[in-house]
Amino acid sequence: MVPHLTTALSGPLLDLERSFLENSTAIERWLRGQWLEHTPPFYSSCDLRNSGFKLAPVDTNLFPGGFNNLNPAFLPLCVQAAMAAIEKFCPEARNLLLIPENHTRNQFYLQNVAQLADILRRTGLNVRIGSLLPEIQAPTPIDLPNGQTLVLEPLKRNRRRLGVEGFEPCAILLNNDLSAGIPEILTGLDEQYVLPPLHAGWAVRRKSNHFAAYDQVANDFAKEIGIDPWRINPAFSVCRSVNFHERQGEECLAANVAAVLDIVREKYREYGIDETPYVVVKADAGTYGMGVMTVRDADEVIALNRKQRNKMSVVKEGLEVSEVIIQEGVHTFETVHEAVAEPVVYMIDRYVVGGFYRVHTGRGKDENLNAPGMHFEPLAFQTCCNLPDAGCSPDDPPNRFYAYGVVARLACLAAAVELERTAPELEPA
Amino acid sequence: MVPHLTTALSGPLLDLERSFLENSTAIERWLRGQWLEHTPPFYSSCDLRNSGFKLAPVDTNLFPGGFNNLNPAFLPLCVQAAMAAIEKFCPEARNLLLIPENHTRNQFYLQNVAQLADILRRTGLNVRIGSLLPEIQAPTPIDLPNGQTLVLEPLKRNRRRLGVEGFEPCAILLNNDLSAGIPEILTGLDEQYVLPPLHAGWAVRRKSNHFAAYDQVANDFAKEIGIDPWRINPAFSVCRSVNFHERQGEECLAANVAAVLDIVREKYREYGIDETPYVVVKADAGTYGMGVMTVRDADEVIALNRKQRNKMSVVKEGLEVSEVIIQEGVHTFETVHEAVAEPVVYMIDRYVVGGFYRVHTGRGKDENLNAPGMHFEPLAFQTCCNLPDAGCSPDDPPNRFYAYGVVARLACLAAAVELERTAPELEPA
Repeated sequence: MVPHLTTALSGPLLDLERSFLENSTAIERWLRGQWLEHTPPFYSSCDLRNSGFKLAPVDTNLFPGGFNNLNPAFLPLCVQAAMAAIEKFCPEARNLLLIPENHTRNQFYLQNVAQLADILRRTGLNVRIGSLLPEIQAPTPIDLPNGQTLVLEPLKRNRRRLGVEGFEPCAILLNNDLSAGIPEILTGLDEQYVLPPLHAGWAVRRKSNHFAAYDQVANDFAKEIGIDPWRINPAFSVCRSVNFHERQGEECLAANVAAVLDIVREKYREYGIDETPYVVVKADAGTYGMGVMTVRDADEVIALNRKQRNKMSVVKEGLEVSEVIIQEGVHTFETVHEAVAEPVVYMIDRYVVGGFYRVHTGRGKDENLNAPGMHFEPLAFQTCCNLPDAGCSPDDPPNRFYAYGVVARLACLAAAVELERTAPELEPA
Repeated sequence: MVPHLTTALSGPLLDLERSFLENSTAIERWLRGQWLEHTPPFYSSCDLRNSGFKLAPVDTNLFPGGFNNLNPAFLPLCVQAAMAAIEKFCPEARNLLLIPENHTRNQFYLQNVAQLADILRRTGLNVRIGSLLPEIQAPTPIDLPNGQTLVLEPLKRNRRRLGVEGFEPCAILLNNDLSAGIPEILTGLDEQYVLPPLHAGWAVRRKSNHFAAYDQVANDFAKEIGIDPWRINPAFSVCRSVNFHERQGEECLAANVAAVLDIVREKYREYGIDETPYVVVKADAGTYGMGVMTVRDADEVIALNRKQRNKMSVVKEGLEVSEVIIQEGVHTFETVHEAVAEPVVYMIDRYVVGGFYRVHTGRGKDENLNAPGMHFEPLAFQTCCNLPDAGCSPDDPPNRFYAYGVVARLACLAAAVELERTAPELEPA
């Protein structure tokens, strides 16, 4: 069960969503069993695309940055879930250190940090915020638009422990995706939990590892409830030695684009879908919607112009792109106020705690919406109709959102499997 | 953190509530530590009385019967909490048997059962409802006012396991308070969890054991946050050999009433409270608001008339009253639409999941409201002002409700301690 939310899509509920609803007890039980085997990441968010015939995750973020965009009505759910998460890691914790991104001028991001700190404080933790920025040399208050003040403090490292002045945390929660690499100050810590673990950061993480884990999760789940796994899983492929500037790896890219498009075309034929297949080429270690390109034909990647090549070459923190994932594109058929929208679902531990729509008025249904010009529409609590499977017609919004919560949790489970598989081996004692 | 609710009281926030708010991080941490030591009951509800100068539990119910009265907006919180509770008891559970009270004609109660079954199903359990009623010989559908149907089934006992036809539950959840005694069919079960345990039922349970445990919890908590424990704890005493019909034990009763009134009078003097102290005499094993009497002077219990004696003699299921608790009365200064109101807070596991007001238009601020003529006003979600300690003035309703959630959880913790202390010794293997 997940919170009931107002969704943008009001069309008829499709077979896929219907089979989720009919199997909700089995689904919840199956997930419960999975969480006995796999520890969910501390928190996550999942970008979904819903084409009606397909509902799939296209990106899973392990350093979610939009807690400020969640509907305030979800705050108690966030706190309850965070309580459960913290009990698991360090039940006797008093102090938690939060390490945010280095965006000290992004007021939206800073409100996310404040919201996150607030959630954590309500679970009974003292929370202080340690900055990786070298220019933060003393506690630095930053005023937020809502009247709150956030204090960034310089990190203090003892031999084996990290904190801020006069503050010894039990756990360190990263809200920094480590795109710039793993800072030395975070390595070799003794008896302090780092959440999520360092290898969850983009210095190490690869989308392709995530979607390989998702393949397995989606197959197991689809078998459990008797659906074609393709209905929830975007096909993908990887090229590992690409250099857009020097036009290296174009053949690999074209061949893989063609292969993924072939899979999609075959599926569209099977289901009688009258849409143009497309793929999305993304940096395998990228985030923030940077290094992303929509492609409808393999030839397109051979003839990239300079501007396109530049766009694809570099992602956040100026990192060079050399590995790309070629992912089946999933059309989004949801709109909010006539603009194309994709749902983003937020989770703490294994619980769905809210979500919002990423909306872009200037983009089409087969384009990346994580781009300048986007905005967010919080998903609202549904006040009526709280018993979706009982009193409501099946295409009511709460029923649709149940399906979103299921697929997002499958992605969260895939992240758990991915982090297990990619965990560095412990050094011998 | 608890859901933010609209409270009836709009008077100034008093010292007590302010100190809860100021210490909320320490309170949550202290509670987290307590839950490491003590397992909360599966679910509970707590009747609170708020006199402004005092906020205290007056009854803790381990078989809560008003889930239908909770605001629908709280359903996700209920499901999330139930997930956490079930994982603790039998994480691999598929099947749960719910055993309700025998009130087959009380439509309100049956809606509570339906709501409870719904919450549990959403956690991924198959739920069936087994009735203790001898007249239920075959699956019996009962139509509810909201259009749902509840099916009561006859219990089936194998040698060591209980279920219904074709259904082997891992856990048995009692929503029957066992006032009539522990049915043999529930005893000697092998490897099936009975939740709450049989000794939580009124066949065994005593209010005095609960409030003795609450004494300890309230003292520890009060020390932790630096308040006088009396501010959250009603004084009480017990008489163990009372027979109202035969006027036995009147002296014990009068002496204890006098003693409790003395304690209260002294406290009222200390705090300069200009109210008339009173005590509430209740059956130590009673429930449903039966066997309850308000007393302002020790002499009153000597001169009980026949009607009063009859009222006090017998509680639910016709049980004779022989033990009574004499509890300090806490005035309720809350009103809803000008009627006297007391908050009832619902918990699943250690989480507050909602609540409502018990309102009685015909009763005074020092009377028992659990009586014919009462009705319920669901506590509504507060849509604005979700950051009580930050942007709001301290007497806003969300802040007040935080205090209710704290005291209710203290009562829940006391129930955990009480159940540990009163657990029957295991038979030697």
